[in-house]
Amino acid sequence: MGHEFDLGIEVRPLGEGRYAAHLGEGWHVGGGVNGGYLLAVMGNAIRNAVPDKPDPLTFAINYVGPSVPGPATVVVRTVRDGRGTATLAVDLLQDDQVRATGLATYGDLAGLPAEVRTTARPPEIPPVEQCVSSMEAPEEMKRAAPLMSRFDMRLDPATAGWAVGEPTGEGRIQAWLRMSDGREPDPLLLLLAADALPPVTFDLGLPGWAPTLELTVHVRARPAPGWLQVGHLTRNVAGGMFEEDCEVWDSAGRLVVQSRQLAKLPR
Amino acid sequence: MGHEFDLGIEVRPLGEGRYAAHLGEGWHVGGGVNGGYLLAVMGNAIRNAVPDKPDPLTFAINYVGPSVPGPATVVVRTVRDGRGTATLAVDLLQDDQVRATGLATYGDLAGLPAEVRTTARPPEIPPVEQCVSSMEAPEEMKRAAPLMSRFDMRLDPATAGWAVGEPTGEGRIQAWLRMSDGREPDPLLLLLAADALPPVTFDLGLPGWAPTLELTVHVRARPAPGWLQVGHLTRNVAGGMFEEDCEVWDSAGRLVVQSRQLAKLPR
Repeated sequence: MGHEFDLGIEVRPLGEGRYAAHLGEGWHVGGGVNGGYLLAVMGNAIRNAVPDKPDPLTFAINYVGPSVPGPATVVVRTVRDGRGTATLAVDLLQDDQVRATGLATYGDLAGLPAEVRTTARPPEIPPVEQCVSSMEAPEEMKRAAPLMSRFDMRLDPATAGWAVGEPTGEGRIQAWLRMSDGREPDPLLLLLAADALPPVTFDLGLPGWAPTLELTVHVRARPAPGWLQVGHLTRNVAGGMFEEDCEVWDSAGRLVVQSRQLAKLPR
Repeated sequence: MGHEFDLGIEVRPLGEGRYAAHLGEGWHVGGGVNGGYLLAVMGNAIRNAVPDKPDPLTFAINYVGPSVPGPATVVVRTVRDGRGTATLAVDLLQDDQVRATGLATYGDLAGLPAEVRTTARPPEIPPVEQCVSSMEAPEEMKRAAPLMSRFDMRLDPATAGWAVGEPTGEGRIQAWLRMSDGREPDPLLLLLAADALPPVTFDLGLPGWAPTLELTVHVRARPAPGWLQVGHLTRNVAGGMFEEDCEVWDSAGRLVVQSRQLAKLPR
């Protein structure tokens, strides 16, 4: 089928838990390759390592250095392969240096009990056609951040003021999200979706790249096809860092991702 | 000085990143040794490994099997030791089997910029003397969960109904917290505090042990001496699992921890 995402996360087994990957030019943004895309590449290698447990349930990652487009090696080590879940350690290397290191719990989301008891509510975003399309961004911005072209992102106008120099100061951004080429969401794509929106610091009037120290994603359910709703916010900017709490909801109104990252403020 | 916590997290370097630890009887609860205590033991070994970066900034851990009181080995591997922060992988083993595996970013909280810009608010808990002391718990419960005696915990009566068979159903518990023997909080103790309260599932009417799959703690500042305020809640019980979002505030009214865990519902 050749969807961009599937081509971008392809891995080739080299034996002994090692996988060859190629980080695509199209996933670059700001100071390096997008962190959510890296998570999906690493997640795809893990999936190869434990095929009977196809889905990430939890994935925590530390970014230790910027990744660049080009060849990369993913190394997967199984810490424990249990009955229902497996725990795996994973590194992504370029030029023999670790660029990202992670810990994941994999399992089978389809095999979990169906009962849901939730008080969480989806973000309130106006209908897609009333939102601000990322396609309308200036050409030079899209050239500098090719990642933007992978997505069809429709920003809630109430949280998009920063795009015209009027951030709200609240530290919240929310949007409709789907892939530009129609690739439907699945658990691996949710790893990307958890790090897809512009940094919440844009809405605090702090433009620029905000390097992530740590990101933890919990995938809570398999997503239904269609648009995703993504919202993230920060409540505590302190010590030169801020947290970014993200939720992803599917078209059936189900909370499919809860994630949090700790990032450095832009310089 | 011989505070229980300091004795409990003691590690002895064995060389090559290996440390001997002894998990104390007093930190047992439910199905194993408390996960926050394990985090502090592992965190203390890391502190030994990178003494110029004494504080955990982020710490993500996967619990792969129950730990028991007795000897344990902690293995620390430095992934990258950078200018301001270091990334470390850490395992805790008993009987040569990995029981917990983690990834941490360490740094120096005292060296971070002082500016704080926060919209987060501390939990609203009545004064200490109007709260429900954990000391009042039945003797058999304290024998079954020796961890309880390590803490002086004063539960907000509004979130303590489960203790008398009247859970609110909201999924929220909050309390004042300090150590029984007066040991003041520091960043390592905050790792324990992030997993100190009874599971939020108690407040959903689901008593019993809730085994944690993954826990990520972000330590956002060095705590002031005195009482801590701890609050945690769940918003999404689904797929037989629930998240537990925890915040810890110090006596100066500062948000010092944000943490989240994903745990299995009690059977």
